[in-house]
Amino acid sequence: MNYKITSISDSPRVELKESLNLSGAEISINTLPAKSYVPFVHSHKENEEIYIIFEGEGKLFIDGKEESIKKGNIFAVKPSGKRAIKAVSELKFACIQVKEGSLKQWTKDDGIINEDIKPSWF
Amino acid sequence: MNYKITSISDSPRVELKESLNLSGAEISINTLPAKSYVPFVHSHKENEEIYIIFEGEGKLFIDGKEESIKKGNIFAVKPSGKRAIKAVSELKFACIQVKEGSLKQWTKDDGIINEDIKPSWF
Repeated sequence: MNYKITSISDSPRVELKESLNLSGAEISINTLPAKSYVPFVHSHKENEEIYIIFEGEGKLFIDGKEESIKKGNIFAVKPSGKRAIKAVSELKFACIQVKEGSLKQWTKDDGIINEDIKPSWF
Repeated sequence: MNYKITSISDSPRVELKESLNLSGAEISINTLPAKSYVPFVHSHKENEEIYIIFEGEGKLFIDGKEESIKKGNIFAVKPSGKRAIKAVSELKFACIQVKEGSLKQWTKDDGIINEDIKPSWF
């Protein structure tokens, strides 16, 4: 089967690699209670991370700077960025991990239009 | 600089490759008005896609099947999956494109704890 569907949960952390059968990304869904924080600063060896904030407000620490983040923000961090996150109000976010430099073909070159099959609404 | 921050917009389609300086993924933010749909079925040569539904309800067509999708759903589609999306109510979603098989190291092996720097809240 070519697809898998799941839902965003309220658990503190759920990794979706297996439930979505991912091979080019790891995605975690994270919920930090108000005023809590991830208790370490981390960077990566070869993976870049993209964060999407679904709910709440928080702070991003990155290489000595601190930025406010909130619902609707999306940010990307290069592997060597030293990062940590704190929730101001309850913070729900996705963290998407991909190998830096791994995407070789972008939409225009990688997409194929399929005319042999169509949905009921066409 | 090791990071870039942007926000989800209400535009019909915004690609974030350049604004987030991405190299391992393309991410687009898409808004489909109620009852509208992407007017073609497509698949990919080598990229898998992950969709995150932020708002609304819709339908996913995939390889001849039709599934209901709504806010909070996340689904992944293998390159060869022939897919199309329709909005039932206004549908806002992210589409994340990554090269199939490209992630080589997962969180446990790729992460580094940094003890030389810390945020104001530690």
